[in-house]
Formats: sequence, C-alpha cells, structure tokens
Amino acid sequence: MRGVVMHAPGDVRVEDRPDPIIEEPTDAIIRVTAACVCGSDLWPYRGAGEVDRAPMGHEYIGIVEQIGSAVQNVAIGDFVVGSFVASDNTCEICQAGFQSRCAHQVMMGSIGTQAEKARIPLADGTLVKVPGKPTEEQTRSLLAASDVLGTGWFAAVAAEAGPGKTVAVVGDGAVGLLGILAANRLGAERIIAMSRHADRQSLAKQFGATDIVEERGDAGIARVKELTNGYGAHSTIEAVGTQESMLQAIGATRPGGHVGFVGVSHDVELDGADLFTATVSLLGGPAPVRRFLPELIELIMTDQINPGVVFDLTLPLEQAAEGYKAMDERRATKVMLTI
Amino acid sequence: MRGVVMHAPGDVRVEDRPDPIIEEPTDAIIRVTAACVCGSDLWPYRGAGEVDRAPMGHEYIGIVEQIGSAVQNVAIGDFVVGSFVASDNTCEICQAGFQSRCAHQVMMGSIGTQAEKARIPLADGTLVKVPGKPTEEQTRSLLAASDVLGTGWFAAVAAEAGPGKTVAVVGDGAVGLLGILAANRLGAERIIAMSRHADRQSLAKQFGATDIVEERGDAGIARVKELTNGYGAHSTIEAVGTQESMLQAIGATRPGGHVGFVGVSHDVELDGADLFTATVSLLGGPAPVRRFLPELIELIMTDQINPGVVFDLTLPLEQAAEGYKAMDERRATKVMLTI
Repeated sequence: MRGVVMHAPGDVRVEDRPDPIIEEPTDAIIRVTAACVCGSDLWPYRGAGEVDRAPMGHEYIGIVEQIGSAVQNVAIGDFVVGSFVASDNTCEICQAGFQSRCAHQVMMGSIGTQAEKARIPLADGTLVKVPGKPTEEQTRSLLAASDVLGTGWFAAVAAEAGPGKTVAVVGDGAVGLLGILAANRLGAERIIAMSRHADRQSLAKQFGATDIVEERGDAGIARVKELTNGYGAHSTIEAVGTQESMLQAIGATRPGGHVGFVGVSHDVELDGADLFTATVSLLGGPAPVRRFLPELIELIMTDQINPGVVFDLTLPLEQAAEGYKAMDERRATKVMLTI
Repeated sequence: MRGVVMHAPGDVRVEDRPDPIIEEPTDAIIRVTAACVCGSDLWPYRGAGEVDRAPMGHEYIGIVEQIGSAVQNVAIGDFVVGSFVASDNTCEICQAGFQSRCAHQVMMGSIGTQAEKARIPLADGTLVKVPGKPTEEQTRSLLAASDVLGTGWFAAVAAEAGPGKTVAVVGDGAVGLLGILAANRLGAERIIAMSRHADRQSLAKQFGATDIVEERGDAGIARVKELTNGYGAHSTIEAVGTQESMLQAIGATRPGGHVGFVGVSHDVELDGADLFTATVSLLGGPAPVRRFLPELIELIMTDQINPGVVFDLTLPLEQAAEGYKAMDERRATKVMLTI
C-alpha cells in the first residue's frame, strides 16, 4: 500500500509500505478513506526531536476491511471513526473518561494512518461506527472529530467552559478554533479568541467567538482582564504548547478558574511559586477523544455542528508533502488527505 | 502590646510593638487569645528569602475589641476565627470560593498575629463568629481551623477526595495530617499516608489513614501504584512544597486524577511535557480557608472532628522563639502560642 513516511525533518515522502495484517485477535484493519496532517506533525517536520523514516498520521476515518477473532463491536463494511490513541475502553482509566491514557494504549502515530490502510489495535474499544451514510460535508467533520475537534472539545471541558462563563482561547490553529466551537456548544456566555490572523479570526467568529484579542503575552493577558472587569477569564483553552502560550493562558485566567491545555508541550517550564500564586486548575494532555466520539458523531450526523470547515486544503494522499509544506508555511490551517 | 518579630533567619524575638488601631472603617481589632507557628514560617526562619524585623504570624482566634464604623457582621465581644488572608467575601473571586485570592485581599502575615492584638482588615468578610462557648479542646481545634485544618481541607477538596476514592497524602506535617482528616470526612475509601515518622504515622492513622508508605520519590510512587492495581491514587494531597514532593504527588496520581497542592512552593519547576503526559488535574495555592470556616466551626463545636490534637507543644507567647526552634528541629509538629 501507499503511505506517508517522514525521512527527516522537512522530508516527507509517499512510498510503498507493507500492507497491515491482523497481529492480535483484538485488531481490525481499515481502509482509510481520509486522513489529515496534524499541527503536532509539524514539530518533527520542523526538527523538534528525532525523526528517521517514521510512518506518519494518527487521524483517520475509514471502512472496516478485516477483523480479528475477538472483535465484536464493529463488523466488516462499517464506516468508523477512531481517535489517535487506541484504547480498550474497559480499564479503570478509560472508564473514568481518560482513554488517551488507557492502561493498554497504543499511539496511532506509531502505526501511521496517512496511508491506504491501517491496523487498529483494540478495535472494540477504539472504533466508533457511524450510523447512516455521511454526506461529503459530514465526512469532513467526522475526520475532524478524530482529533482536532475531539481535542478542542476536551480542552473546553477541561477548562470547564459552560453557561455564564467567559472563555479565553489561546491559539488559533484547528484545535483552538474547534475549542471555540466546543465552548459555544457547551453554553459559554462569552468567548475571547486570541488571534492576529484575519482568516482565522473570521472562522473563530463563525464558531462563536464574541471578542477578538490580537495582543499576546502580558499585553494579551492585560486585554483579557480589561474585558472581564479585571478578573480574567473563568476558563482558558491553551492550544499551542509553548512557554509563552502556557503563561498567557494561566495569566489570563482568574483565581479559581480552569485552564485546559492541549497544545503538545515543547520546552515549557512552569515555576511552582507562580503556579501556587495563580490558584487556577490545570488539566491537559493528550485528549481522550474517544470519550466524546459518540456525542460528536451524533452532533455531526444531525448537522448541529460543522467542524469540517477547518479543512482549508484538500489533497490526494500522493501530494502529502505539499500538505505538510502548506501547513508549515501557514498557507493552510488544516489539511485533509483523501485516499 | 507584645508581639513576635523575626529579626533575621533564626532570630525570633518577642518585643513591644505598637497597639493596632482602626485604619479603615471596615477594620476590626481583636484581642488574640491564641496564635500558632506555621510550617510556612519556617521558610524565612531557615533563610529562604529575605526577612528583616518582620512581624510574624497569620493564624489566630480571638475576641473582637473594637470595630470600624462600617463593620456589621461582628460585634465587640464576639469570639471569632479568621483565615490567613483577609477577604471581602463579596467580589466575584470570593463568591466563587477563592477568598484567598480576593480582589481586595490583605495577607495577615503582613500584619502579624503572633501578638496580643491584631488589626483585621475587611472584618465582615474575614471573621466568622463562633457560636456558644468553646471548651479548651474546641478552642485548640478552632485555632487549627484558621489555617492548617482549612488548608488541609482545601487540599482534599482540590484533590476531589470523596466516596470510592483512594487518596494519597504527601507530607506528614500538620497540613498533611489534617488533609487526611478532611479526606476521611469527605468519605474517601482509602487514604495512603506517606510518612516515615512513627509519631506522625500514628496521628495519620488516628485521622483515618488506612495505609502508610514510608518510601519517597520514585520508590514511593511505585509503592502507591502497587497499592492501587498499578493505576495510582485518584486524589493526591501535596503538603510540602518541594520539587521532590510535587513530582511524587503528580507521579502517584492516576491519569484523570486530581492533585491538590498546598505546600508553599520553593524552587519547584514543572516540566511542561511531563505535566502534559501525566494528564492529571492540578489545583493548589493559598487555601481559601474562609470558604470552609462556617462548616469547620460547626464540625468542631459539635465535636465531630478534633483537629486540635495536631498541637503537640503549647507555649506562652513570650516563649515563641522556643516554638520556632522546636518546629525547626522537628521536635514539634505544630506549636500553639497562648496569649
């Protein structure tokens, strides 16, 4: 089969890779119908950390082609969505809603879903069947649910966005934008998008942002406080993962407020005394997207949300390298790869 | 009046200080009947940070002697408890239960309650009247409520201790021990006290600890996981404030669990990537003791809890220096100063 392989930073190729096979009785093999390039794929692309001929991709939708002998919840021919972490959905951690840290987790990034096919470990726990036949628009949204929507949703839930709350959102990538959509759906009263890009501001407003703050760092914090009677936001979504963005998120949050951080952390160091003084709740990490998938699929298939609009560039799998380049150069917010 | 002044690290004296006066119409003056030496007083005592003739003390119970013209909730003669932060109890932060970060907060440590009298700013918001006449035992417990009990209680609430939960407690000082009492009252199923001191282990058990772990650091984390089917605690109380204790608390907590940290942070640096991977909720800081005072006073005055037993050394104010020394040398867990 054909699949994306990153040979080195900046060097993305589409190559022949061996077809996946059932390795465990709990596995399924899916024919991937669409995958995407993730903001987190840009970290190795830009040289953060080592990368040497790694299969790429962890977001996917597709059709079940083969199942292991122990698989019961999905059948051949099912159209399915899964998250970027394969999880059994039965251990105590999964049952508490943290499937991204399942006791038996397998990171889908280690398998690589930017490919024609993919092995899905723990298929019963990982995959959720889509009812009915999705439209093209719904299909794009289902793909978004696989990671960026689910991650933005978790960030909003972790930040305790809800009725009466003012939510600040740091980061205007696909996750930050869909965090806005999530906060809006969860009933937030006011949503402050921190963004300085006109096109993303526009999408932010479409998703429910009520205010735009262009300032960053201390100036951004000051502006959020100004908009909230000096108190700061009740809930802040952090969707970048840098030192500046984390401090901006914590600083923009009022004492007793909540920060949901989902930007993959790079070189972030938090000073204990500052955190102590801040008196905010922090919850973040790899989003347990699986927790939200049934609800998100329902919202998408009933056209209540349309997160698929974050895909502003669609390319065939063979042109994956151009997709990475476009996102790296910020010519695209989120790239969909059709297969 | 007589009051404690720290001239320099290790140099604590009881001296004549000016009697406090009403400075704002919202002030009250109380006659302090008992104060204590706090674990956090030991930081400057041991030379962490600068200290130059600072009035000391922030825990207190006493009798209202004088009130400003705007004070309505307490009257002269009332027996009152307050927390270590004066707060208006009306701003949005206070109303959300984070009085320790009140928009108009005054740190009582800057006033110094290890003294015969103290000015209490924002008296209406800060002070809570004790109904009836407390016994000697109740009096000690009310003094504990002023800080160590309220702080341990907040840590347990921040860690979401409750029915069905396994709670780990890092730190066996007065706050950690009373965190155990709080977790027990909040219905925790299992409480793991991390302590290697026999006398404190005994008090931990008296307060409701079901297991004792003597190991620290990675070995302590491994032991907590061993006791919890490999998952880690649902809820962890951190009541020390060092790098080792914070990492021990985070490491002992299962993904999706909660850490309540109340040890005043010293030289703690948290790695963002480690925190991201941990996927635990962190909430800490100066405890909003005021939130819990009415409930704690009720529990104490009806003899449902007896936190006052943490005071294992009682000295007259004039011997405050010996109280600091005893705590510094770990000859005492918590020192009460009678006035």
